[in-house]
Amino acid sequence: MIVVADNLRITLLPVGRAVERMDPEPIRQMISACMDAGAQAIDINSGPLSRTPEEKMTFLVRTVQETVDLPIVLDTANPRAIAAGLAAGNQKAIINGVSVEPDRLRQILPLARQYDCDIIGYLLGPDGHVPADAPGRMEVAVTLFNKMQIAGISPDRIVIDPVVAPLAWQDGNRQNMAVLEVIRTLPELLGFPVRTIAGLSNLTTGAPDLDTRRRYQGAFLPMLVAAGVDMVLLNILDPALTRVADSSQRIADGRVFSWQ
Amino acid sequence: MIVVADNLRITLLPVGRAVERMDPEPIRQMISACMDAGAQAIDINSGPLSRTPEEKMTFLVRTVQETVDLPIVLDTANPRAIAAGLAAGNQKAIINGVSVEPDRLRQILPLARQYDCDIIGYLLGPDGHVPADAPGRMEVAVTLFNKMQIAGISPDRIVIDPVVAPLAWQDGNRQNMAVLEVIRTLPELLGFPVRTIAGLSNLTTGAPDLDTRRRYQGAFLPMLVAAGVDMVLLNILDPALTRVADSSQRIADGRVFSWQ
Repeated sequence: MIVVADNLRITLLPVGRAVERMDPEPIRQMISACMDAGAQAIDINSGPLSRTPEEKMTFLVRTVQETVDLPIVLDTANPRAIAAGLAAGNQKAIINGVSVEPDRLRQILPLARQYDCDIIGYLLGPDGHVPADAPGRMEVAVTLFNKMQIAGISPDRIVIDPVVAPLAWQDGNRQNMAVLEVIRTLPELLGFPVRTIAGLSNLTTGAPDLDTRRRYQGAFLPMLVAAGVDMVLLNILDPALTRVADSSQRIADGRVFSWQ
Repeated sequence: MIVVADNLRITLLPVGRAVERMDPEPIRQMISACMDAGAQAIDINSGPLSRTPEEKMTFLVRTVQETVDLPIVLDTANPRAIAAGLAAGNQKAIINGVSVEPDRLRQILPLARQYDCDIIGYLLGPDGHVPADAPGRMEVAVTLFNKMQIAGISPDRIVIDPVVAPLAWQDGNRQNMAVLEVIRTLPELLGFPVRTIAGLSNLTTGAPDLDTRRRYQGAFLPMLVAAGVDMVLLNILDPALTRVADSSQRIADGRVFSWQ
């Protein structure tokens, strides 16, 4: 499993301010801390970047790359920002992402093809909503997987995100049990060992404090690992959570030898 | 999921000494603490009780019952101790347990029938060893489930224990992934919603300290909950672990409302 830091978010005040000022230093510090904490990839959650998306994404990608030698995940709905991020990258980035929504497929899939890079597909229905149950998610997964391949994306470039639901939603628990089922069974359903990704922080949207986020994320993370998820986006700067990630992987992969 | 305290073990010096002296006080104190910590049942792990098994098990069952009003699990290989424990019980106990080993089936199944009580079946092969992979465990499960029914045990009285392996074993991780698969798929395989139980403490046999036990047990417990286990035997006096049990169940059952 690859652990992706989801810490670099433009909605965080210091990050947003650094981007406005094109000041790399606060971002460098955060990314260095993420690397020290064991991040294996960095998600750049830039938001829509409605003003000067190319400049800002180029600045973000270059700043991250100047600091660490890790894969970058371009997390934005804006195709112009994605294009700029791909062009600025020294190595292949991961596009995050598309759904079955036609406009986004039309605008973003050609970029994935042009740069021959990994691309994340979200299991959102055509109405932009998450299907509530596992069969609904599976149906969207099959449609999306086919549309992406028809557009020329190789299946081994596709990563499926079944969309972790906030527990505070009325049916959040049922949705998250469906997320686990999708991760576990999708490769068999598609007849291809498609990779999967999950965004752990979504689970506790609206939770009141760090302790609450920790306890629920720390319980759901081992469930994701046991289900066989390939990538997890999480707050890498929470040592309690990275410890759970590590222990879960050791159990699943058999790397408990010396009890380290 | 029912959380069973596995704390009352005769191998612990204070417990062993209390049983030798027939002194109920140390046992009462421990059991009260287990109840306060949220135990929903008490496992009486008496060992083989080779000398005076009837007296000792009767003493243990009575002492526990005088302290708490919780179901009791009779955890011993000795049929004489099981018989005495069942006779001493005010309410139905759970027998823990049998395997496909013919002598044990012959001696213990009639007791389960006579007292019409729940009985745990371990997935150990006829040689007394744990099958290494999931198909091996499934095969033993089918054999055991059938033998128990042929002996007159109702399927809704049967609880299957797929036997958690110590992580320190060379193939411990593979075995424990098989344990999860058995828990998840056994009801479908048997065509009956058979209950399952797992002993969490086994996972960290040989671990050097509490912190190590916590981190691995705390990561495996949510995996068990997500797999749908019905009962877990664990150290209820570790608050870190009971917190994980609680959070995992809230995620699986949808009891996260007020983030309490």
